[in-house]
Amino acid sequence: MALTFTVQHRDGAARAGVLTLPHGRVETPVFMPVGTQATVKGLTPDMVRRAGVQIILGNTYHLALRPGDTLVAELGGLHRFMAWDRPILTDSGGFQVFSLATQVKITDRGATFRSHIDGSPLELTPERAVEIQQNLGSDIAMVLDQCPPGAAPDDVIRTAVRRSILWAERCKTHHTRADQSQFAIVQGGTNLALREECARELVAMDFPGYALGGFSVGEGPEAMHAALPACAVLLPDAKPRYLMGVGRPEDLLAGVAAGIDMFDCVMPTRNGRNALAFTDDGPIRLRNAKHRRDTAPVESGCPCDCCTTFSRAYLHHLFAADEMLGPTLLSLHNVSYYLRLMASAREAIRGGRFEAFRAGRLARWEGRSID
Amino acid sequence: MALTFTVQHRDGAARAGVLTLPHGRVETPVFMPVGTQATVKGLTPDMVRRAGVQIILGNTYHLALRPGDTLVAELGGLHRFMAWDRPILTDSGGFQVFSLATQVKITDRGATFRSHIDGSPLELTPERAVEIQQNLGSDIAMVLDQCPPGAAPDDVIRTAVRRSILWAERCKTHHTRADQSQFAIVQGGTNLALREECARELVAMDFPGYALGGFSVGEGPEAMHAALPACAVLLPDAKPRYLMGVGRPEDLLAGVAAGIDMFDCVMPTRNGRNALAFTDDGPIRLRNAKHRRDTAPVESGCPCDCCTTFSRAYLHHLFAADEMLGPTLLSLHNVSYYLRLMASAREAIRGGRFEAFRAGRLARWEGRSID
Ligand SMILES: [Zn+2]
Ligand SMILES: [Zn+2]
Repeated sequence: MALTFTVQHRDGAARAGVLTLPHGRVETPVFMPVGTQATVKGLTPDMVRRAGVQIILGNTYHLALRPGDTLVAELGGLHRFMAWDRPILTDSGGFQVFSLATQVKITDRGATFRSHIDGSPLELTPERAVEIQQNLGSDIAMVLDQCPPGAAPDDVIRTAVRRSILWAERCKTHHTRADQSQFAIVQGGTNLALREECARELVAMDFPGYALGGFSVGEGPEAMHAALPACAVLLPDAKPRYLMGVGRPEDLLAGVAAGIDMFDCVMPTRNGRNALAFTDDGPIRLRNAKHRRDTAPVESGCPCDCCTTFSRAYLHHLFAADEMLGPTLLSLHNVSYYLRLMASAREAIRGGRFEAFRAGRLARWEGRSID
Repeated sequence: MALTFTVQHRDGAARAGVLTLPHGRVETPVFMPVGTQATVKGLTPDMVRRAGVQIILGNTYHLALRPGDTLVAELGGLHRFMAWDRPILTDSGGFQVFSLATQVKITDRGATFRSHIDGSPLELTPERAVEIQQNLGSDIAMVLDQCPPGAAPDDVIRTAVRRSILWAERCKTHHTRADQSQFAIVQGGTNLALREECARELVAMDFPGYALGGFSVGEGPEAMHAALPACAVLLPDAKPRYLMGVGRPEDLLAGVAAGIDMFDCVMPTRNGRNALAFTDDGPIRLRNAKHRRDTAPVESGCPCDCCTTFSRAYLHHLFAADEMLGPTLLSLHNVSYYLRLMASAREAIRGGRFEAFRAGRLARWEGRSID
């Protein structure tokens, strides 16, 4: 069995559970840092482990282009290649084809496009997406889907839903790797009727896990928060639910409240490289001159190696001097922060006080969000 | 006593000893990685410690400009600021003024120049160089000297020597910090008569340690290797001898053979960032396509975290994908390599077989040096 999932505690729609995968045990709800090109940017695997990370995400599109999925397979798989021995989830590559590649043409067969690296012509079909991920050897693979922009008209969303269902079926048929579980992706934008139709078809195919795609693609956080509860209940209660590419700390808590178990986002690392730190009192910008002689850690009480070792004044200096160590240390803090937030959410669910926990965090963050 | 130095073994002119400083014990001959802007580029202090580093170098010019030496003092000194609890040596800032700043004017009083960061007008006098380093709180401070280019005519070198002697005396007079030792710097280029004159004057002033400046400034490695033995013996036998800003592994061994105890250079970190790794079989370039599917570590048998964890194929990928982790990992290997080379040199001296050790290394590196 490549995957087992047990919900152990419930608190409203929120749930805390355990996901068991070939490379280890994952407590949910869980945040998965993004390791796009076989590295969580700026961090060694040891730093990632010390931050409490249980599972990371790898990008199929990037890895297929460079170094190439057959090379990764030849070198023993993605875990061995990047020296990460805990679980990995890989996306299908579709989202990056639509957002990064050029000359993208989509038919029912799949997508043709040109590489953003060297312009070479490539094709991504459902079958190829499965093969790439089987070569990478991730614990969880995603089906190829079509993700329309948040503002897309209903007929565009309808076509994407129809095609995503078709492709999911072909992915399931093509998938052979017994030590890898394949998750389906429900599309439909903020159109609940289309979400329902997509979920019904995919649930009938009996995948071991389900994701919500097509959120955080321009529809605005209020629209997403409003849509999440109704969309989450469309996914089987007994299986892991994954909200793709989301997001800010407040978005994660909205997802947990709606019954989501898994999240991924580039925000902690991308913002860390840009000198922004997430804290329980909202984000702080280390480039700000007020931190020049600030002897406090980035976040008081944070047990991460950045906060227990260095002052804000030192971080301010590293960013002012354009030193690599600044992005590394703030990425470390931010990843640790996201992991700590999820651990606190699990603890609150277990204690039956998740809504009070969430309200308390939102009150402290009030008016201090980032875009 | 801010410094004690004991030579414990001799092997020809080479010597192995122990240097005791306020922040710890240093086995010599020692290599000091450069932490220009209060960080060894790309490495956490923990990584630097794990690489076996006993003492690092900080740059007075850079730190005085940014974040400023009075701010560092206010924040508890350089050790606390950068979270490095082992010894630190700071240079005097002179070398960077002459190589990085603009509109440099030198008189007996000192140097006036404009900052390479924002063009602001500044002055570095011997007294100011002492004050900056006292504010930084390094274990070893260097006197301000004037370092002429390697190809300078004798009258230029003569002026630099006269001024370096004058400035050394003023630095000694101005120095008050009891927990910091001040080293003098012998200039004179490859003109042995001028080196002798400079050394005689400085030795009479009785500094706790002496450096050779003005090497590796364009004179060519053969000229340097030829000049080193005669220059090293000009420095007191019972005191630590430091060869500034040198260099390649073969240059370090030439220095050790001549009786030098301390070295610093940016080569391991700068080359690491450029995908070049130092090994016992000479340098290797990880960007080279031949490493694309190379499952070997950067250097077989190297105990560093890079070599025990990752393949050359992975390093090749990180550099191809422009990922920060590539420069970090290769800087780590290179610093570890330099430290390991010095540990082997000490061991060889203790065993009375340094010349055989050096000849063996040179034979393996033959024809594989980098510029
Ligand atoms: Zn922290
Ligand atoms: Zn190594």
